[in-house]
Amino acid sequence: MYYDEAEKLSRLEIERLQLMRLQRTLRQAAKSPFYKERFKECGLDVDAVKSLDDVKSLPFTTKQDLRDSYPDKVLAMPQSEMVRMHVSSGTTGTPTVIYHTQKDLDWWASLMARCMHMVGLRRTDVFQNMSGYGLFTGGLGIHCGAEKLGCLTIPAGAGNSHRQIKLLMDFKVTGIHIIPSYALYLTTIFAELGIDPRTLPLRIALVGAEPYSEESRRRLEALYDMKCYNSYGLSEMNGPGVAFECTEQHGMHVWEDAYLPEIVDPATGEPVPDGEYGELVMTSLGREGMPIIRYRTRDITRFLTEPCPCGREHRRIDRLQGRCDDMMIVKGCNIFPMQIERILMSMPEVGENYLIILERDGFIDNIRVKVEIRDEFFVEDMRQLGSLQKRIASRLRDEILVTPRVELVERNSLPKSEGKAKRVVDNRERGA
Amino acid sequence: MYYDEAEKLSRLEIERLQLMRLQRTLRQAAKSPFYKERFKECGLDVDAVKSLDDVKSLPFTTKQDLRDSYPDKVLAMPQSEMVRMHVSSGTTGTPTVIYHTQKDLDWWASLMARCMHMVGLRRTDVFQNMSGYGLFTGGLGIHCGAEKLGCLTIPAGAGNSHRQIKLLMDFKVTGIHIIPSYALYLTTIFAELGIDPRTLPLRIALVGAEPYSEESRRRLEALYDMKCYNSYGLSEMNGPGVAFECTEQHGMHVWEDAYLPEIVDPATGEPVPDGEYGELVMTSLGREGMPIIRYRTRDITRFLTEPCPCGREHRRIDRLQGRCDDMMIVKGCNIFPMQIERILMSMPEVGENYLIILERDGFIDNIRVKVEIRDEFFVEDMRQLGSLQKRIASRLRDEILVTPRVELVERNSLPKSEGKAKRVVDNRERGA
Repeated sequence: MYYDEAEKLSRLEIERLQLMRLQRTLRQAAKSPFYKERFKECGLDVDAVKSLDDVKSLPFTTKQDLRDSYPDKVLAMPQSEMVRMHVSSGTTGTPTVIYHTQKDLDWWASLMARCMHMVGLRRTDVFQNMSGYGLFTGGLGIHCGAEKLGCLTIPAGAGNSHRQIKLLMDFKVTGIHIIPSYALYLTTIFAELGIDPRTLPLRIALVGAEPYSEESRRRLEALYDMKCYNSYGLSEMNGPGVAFECTEQHGMHVWEDAYLPEIVDPATGEPVPDGEYGELVMTSLGREGMPIIRYRTRDITRFLTEPCPCGREHRRIDRLQGRCDDMMIVKGCNIFPMQIERILMSMPEVGENYLIILERDGFIDNIRVKVEIRDEFFVEDMRQLGSLQKRIASRLRDEILVTPRVELVERNSLPKSEGKAKRVVDNRERGA
Repeated sequence: MYYDEAEKLSRLEIERLQLMRLQRTLRQAAKSPFYKERFKECGLDVDAVKSLDDVKSLPFTTKQDLRDSYPDKVLAMPQSEMVRMHVSSGTTGTPTVIYHTQKDLDWWASLMARCMHMVGLRRTDVFQNMSGYGLFTGGLGIHCGAEKLGCLTIPAGAGNSHRQIKLLMDFKVTGIHIIPSYALYLTTIFAELGIDPRTLPLRIALVGAEPYSEESRRRLEALYDMKCYNSYGLSEMNGPGVAFECTEQHGMHVWEDAYLPEIVDPATGEPVPDGEYGELVMTSLGREGMPIIRYRTRDITRFLTEPCPCGREHRRIDRLQGRCDDMMIVKGCNIFPMQIERILMSMPEVGENYLIILERDGFIDNIRVKVEIRDEFFVEDMRQLGSLQKRIASRLRDEILVTPRVELVERNSLPKSEGKAKRVVDNRERGA
């Protein structure tokens, strides 16, 4: 039933292991120029860390710290010991680099294999990885986990929808890794080909890399007749394989033998009470090449406090609420794009695509939402459409506390994406 | 000096090993539906193969055979034992699929690591793989070899030239895998950035996946101040790692502990005398999941018969002359695009790009060659240009026995490619 011993540890055993590995990780981190200096600055004696609670006294590491340390100041071992690096896209500035030793890669692959095993994938499964490969961790990260588990792994890569469908069918693929917006897009290609995706042997999808709502999940599960399991990962903590849903589909178990998660108030950095939303902070416990201490992920989530019916005692984090940085402020309200998606996807009239546009009229911010409507609801009768429009606006207002301008548009009229969907356009002029 | 024991085997030891592995491979292949039937058809008793010479009595396997066996009739083990597949692009029909067990992948990575070690790469090197990943074997194939050798491997993937250059510089990359036409193209981006690629720490390039001439190699070596080593591989025999140049840069050693190479007359299938050109035929000796017997590669080459000064006794094949299928017939002459490239690239006036266009005027085939000329030679004086044009036409005629129409064009005026270069356009109407 379990992939490895660590998966079935009790709370007590997990915490004992975590403390031991935290101490080891701190000693290892102290060998890097970055942490050596950081620990010195805050007068940290790594040997004085005697309990898991002491983690609160350790300094945070931010994305900016990693950027400032570019390219190799966080390395805790000679570069010649490293066998791979991944680099973040660096669209918002200097890229960040994560280095791995062979041992780091082996552990990462095991964690990923454990995720896949947990949701029922086995060596007899045929697994198609629809992630882009290369520097992005979703490609090689998932790939190596699938091979480690022993699945027949198809490195399909991103895009080329007709070939993806041919592979799915010809090789009787039972498991996939896919981005939710692409999974929705692919249904339109299936429709063009006159193929019902529910007739495929596909059973299980690993879904991550992009925020999506519970309603989108249920819709995808119905469209493909498969189970979708949410994955959480970030390149700073290797990539995929950090936290993963079990078959309960309620929260993602963080592999606490490899990571030490905390939830803090993003403004103060103080821990929030268990069960409250805050920013996820992660410490790697299993990495020798480039340990990272208390990384500020910018992701907003909370711990689920009840024991999971599956019996695993690795703590669960809730579906991400958004990123600290994604939060939109409109008329003084904090809004996450995910809130809007959740409402839209719960309405049967709404199609697969939508777009959020932020605008400024004079001094007033407005939010406009363009929504694709399914053909059968896109009727001639203007009164019916007007009523639907009002209903959507009102449901959104209840959720985000701002009344948006809602525009109904025909199926396939909004820009499509083969990669991560761009859901928000900010047209507000920046003030001087 | 050597990466592993197999690299330093004597001829006698190689051949003893080959016979043993050929016998094992035949017994393994006979477990697949395809070979079971094929062996039966030609009344082959695999136990009757008692010498390497007996290989001549074995049936060939063609690309079409693999297509007809799509998706899994050549599998010699249950599909559940397989952990990866690669699929050819299938641009010319049904794709072909190659399956690998974990043991197959480990051996493949070792062969690739051996190639890289042979030309001087070590675990202290930083290696940037500029191949596309995914189903194409040049990505994961080279990647896994580099990791196995212990290089710090950067999975850069294809394209995104500015990022490629940033990675090369920021991480002091010493080894790369690159397609020759892209390496040439990249020099134009370096020039735009005002960076001389010769100032980089880059020492070694693995170059393959596309035919290119000795003159192109020398030019690339000078432009980057690095050594370029030619690589030969094909997905049917795993991918890269089949044959590789040593530091003599004269012919590629076929790893004969893993492959049994033959050269045959493409028309008759009979062996050609040692040293003569013909079609390369390959048998896998190390694959358990999907052994392939006497695969017709369609690649034209010859064995180099002298012992290699490097001391390795694995036989060398010469630079590929072209593919059986690439051969152009113009006015009754057999012409390979590589012959034209070789001449053009030996002339200092010629730039990085050219295009071969086949045309038909009435009943007569013509060959037109558009050639980019370097800025310093692209002068106003029409007489000088006319003289250069005649000189190129005459040198080409000496090589291909047909006088081409030569057009001189300015730098950057021909279509560029970030992937495999398209060098030949055939505009001849097909007869009814």
